[in-house]
Amino acid sequence: MILDDLDARAAALDARHAQTDLRDRFLLPDGVVYLDGNSLGALPVGVPEAIESVVREQWGRDLIGSWNTHGWWDAPVRVGDAIGRLIGAAPGQVVVGDSTSVRLHQSLHAAAALRPGRGVVLTEPGSFPTDEYVVAGVAAQVGWRVEHATPAEIPARLGSEVAVVVLSHVDYRTGELLDLPGITAAAHDAGALVVWDLCHSAGALPVGLDAHDVDLAVGCGYKYLNGGPGAPAYGYVAARHQDAFVNVLPGWNGHAEPFAMAEGYVGAAGVARARIGTPPMLSLLALEAALRAFDGMTIEEVRARSLSLTSFLRDAIATVVPDADFASPQDDRRRGSQVALRHPDAYGIVQALAARGVVGDFRTPDLVRLGVAAPYLTHADLVAAVRALREVLRHDEHLDPAWTTRNVVT
Amino acid sequence: MILDDLDARAAALDARHAQTDLRDRFLLPDGVVYLDGNSLGALPVGVPEAIESVVREQWGRDLIGSWNTHGWWDAPVRVGDAIGRLIGAAPGQVVVGDSTSVRLHQSLHAAAALRPGRGVVLTEPGSFPTDEYVVAGVAAQVGWRVEHATPAEIPARLGSEVAVVVLSHVDYRTGELLDLPGITAAAHDAGALVVWDLCHSAGALPVGLDAHDVDLAVGCGYKYLNGGPGAPAYGYVAARHQDAFVNVLPGWNGHAEPFAMAEGYVGAAGVARARIGTPPMLSLLALEAALRAFDGMTIEEVRARSLSLTSFLRDAIATVVPDADFASPQDDRRRGSQVALRHPDAYGIVQALAARGVVGDFRTPDLVRLGVAAPYLTHADLVAAVRALREVLRHDEHLDPAWTTRNVVT
Repeated sequence: MILDDLDARAAALDARHAQTDLRDRFLLPDGVVYLDGNSLGALPVGVPEAIESVVREQWGRDLIGSWNTHGWWDAPVRVGDAIGRLIGAAPGQVVVGDSTSVRLHQSLHAAAALRPGRGVVLTEPGSFPTDEYVVAGVAAQVGWRVEHATPAEIPARLGSEVAVVVLSHVDYRTGELLDLPGITAAAHDAGALVVWDLCHSAGALPVGLDAHDVDLAVGCGYKYLNGGPGAPAYGYVAARHQDAFVNVLPGWNGHAEPFAMAEGYVGAAGVARARIGTPPMLSLLALEAALRAFDGMTIEEVRARSLSLTSFLRDAIATVVPDADFASPQDDRRRGSQVALRHPDAYGIVQALAARGVVGDFRTPDLVRLGVAAPYLTHADLVAAVRALREVLRHDEHLDPAWTTRNVVT
Repeated sequence: MILDDLDARAAALDARHAQTDLRDRFLLPDGVVYLDGNSLGALPVGVPEAIESVVREQWGRDLIGSWNTHGWWDAPVRVGDAIGRLIGAAPGQVVVGDSTSVRLHQSLHAAAALRPGRGVVLTEPGSFPTDEYVVAGVAAQVGWRVEHATPAEIPARLGSEVAVVVLSHVDYRTGELLDLPGITAAAHDAGALVVWDLCHSAGALPVGLDAHDVDLAVGCGYKYLNGGPGAPAYGYVAARHQDAFVNVLPGWNGHAEPFAMAEGYVGAAGVARARIGTPPMLSLLALEAALRAFDGMTIEEVRARSLSLTSFLRDAIATVVPDADFASPQDDRRRGSQVALRHPDAYGIVQALAARGVVGDFRTPDLVRLGVAAPYLTHADLVAAVRALREVLRHDEHLDPAWTTRNVVT
């Protein structure tokens, strides 16, 4: 019996990867296999207490003084440094706060100021919608023409007109991992800058921002970083660009002397000049507490575990769905940390799986997206998920008329 | 003995205003008189439990499904409606998320689109710095000239060139309350729009946005609204402007069909088109829980209590500092909800008061700023504060060399 074989293989792999099993650092409900950590990461065990303390002791008891005594003021750069460790950025280059949309808008304007006289922004068709919308919006403001090319075509499309290349490191639908080092180098050879969106890679795999000379990057805090719903986003500004970084959103938090209440705007030194307004401290400090779930682990270790899990998941799915149409690359070097399947009844499959305690998500029009957050998943969990998938398909649960109304908010 | 007289007067006033004493709806440390609610409001009693539930049950247990089942997706407009009740906005005109700086930037761009062909933004000198910086930044982008005028001069400075007037409803230093109805009407007579910054008035006094035909407004959630450190800000877009509202920050949350993941940006109907990216849910839901502290109270009742308190505080200060130089207006109609004193040793006074448990704040160069959040303060608290002030001045505690290093973050 095929699934029994998978059980045995899973047990062996879980034993081999036992040192990177961080399941006990997360609070997850019993009976749930959570394959949506690429949309909202699970709750790290230290967060509830940390937030209780922030609320009752810092806000409630120490009140306004907490901006100094509890390090609130410095939190955007301090938490930025903690994220920096996971994305290959040395301290002082990452700032946390605002949403990915706002950070991307800010980064693109900064790129325009760094590359005056170039009139093209180059991106791929099928980026995450917010990236498309923000790129189009900034392009209209600064006078750029938006050009689209597939990642493979990009090197050939670069030229003296391209100011900036904007790409997602990992495709949100297929999970395809782009060649960040190669595309970045090609862009630089053509005199262009790169802005990478790390939403689907940060916390899941090595990014190496400094090592690959990335210029600017943005990402959210709530997926593989497990920062909680709507956790603040972050922006990376390579040290070499900081002096010339123009902040299109010059809120007082990014001022060189914020408490001088001076009339004219003078940006702070370092990455702090990318700060905007007052950040949402409860959400920001929840993110800080969440990042401790990675303590003692390198991102390379997370990646090794993730590759074992996604590779195994792919194999396991193929055993119960022999004609599975995988949207995610088979090649380890090109796969992020998710496995996506194309299926005409994808929506129904996701709903029917959820009814069985296997939480993935649907992406229009036909994707079953299974995110693999390596720290809290085991190979055995994935067998449980595949067993549920087999039952769903065997009993046509995905065709249940209850799933005809599409109303997924994820 | 003068202070004994004050005690008696305070007791009488507290008895008269007993019905609006909401102190038991807040968690404040014993022995502290908190006069900084205009910088960071106190912790409402229902917030810790609400956030514990959001963290453990919504995020931790119900995970991604909470976007639907716990109303996360609709929270920006739902919480906006709750704020709307306090600022005189009918439902469907206020959206919560992002910082005041971002909301102001967005509102000014929307105003520019609503008033094409007009080349001036009119504001006052001495606005809160972030407003100055953001006004200058947007002006540079859209080609406006920035003109400054005192609030009294503004009606005479209006003309066919002015696109928008941007003002703080209450001055963050002096606590002066501007004539919002009069200035708004004058601006409209000249064909201009108004953008009001409500940071220092929302939750403290009636604003009447709808009643006075305000066009656009912004404000923060963490002062008199008590939403917690860095609580999300909000934006008001009058219903009549929503169809033509251009969102300069077109993140996917403001799209008409956010889950269609469509290529082109099409703004949602109503105020939801002012949404940007994913909002920080922990901070946003803390704000929602905090607003329940106002349940059963009208903003007019809050204002009546506030005026009694600030008027009494002024009188009480005058009894112990006969030559007090008040920066705040004496006239009730022109005073917000704070009392500010000019003093060459303002910094030392604020520090020495804090050492005695009376928390106010310093504003450069010479202001002692005492914020009066009416719901959780009594007249007796204010006598305690003034008693401490008398002791500070009598013993020259404000001249202590310990206060020579200015390092206030508030």
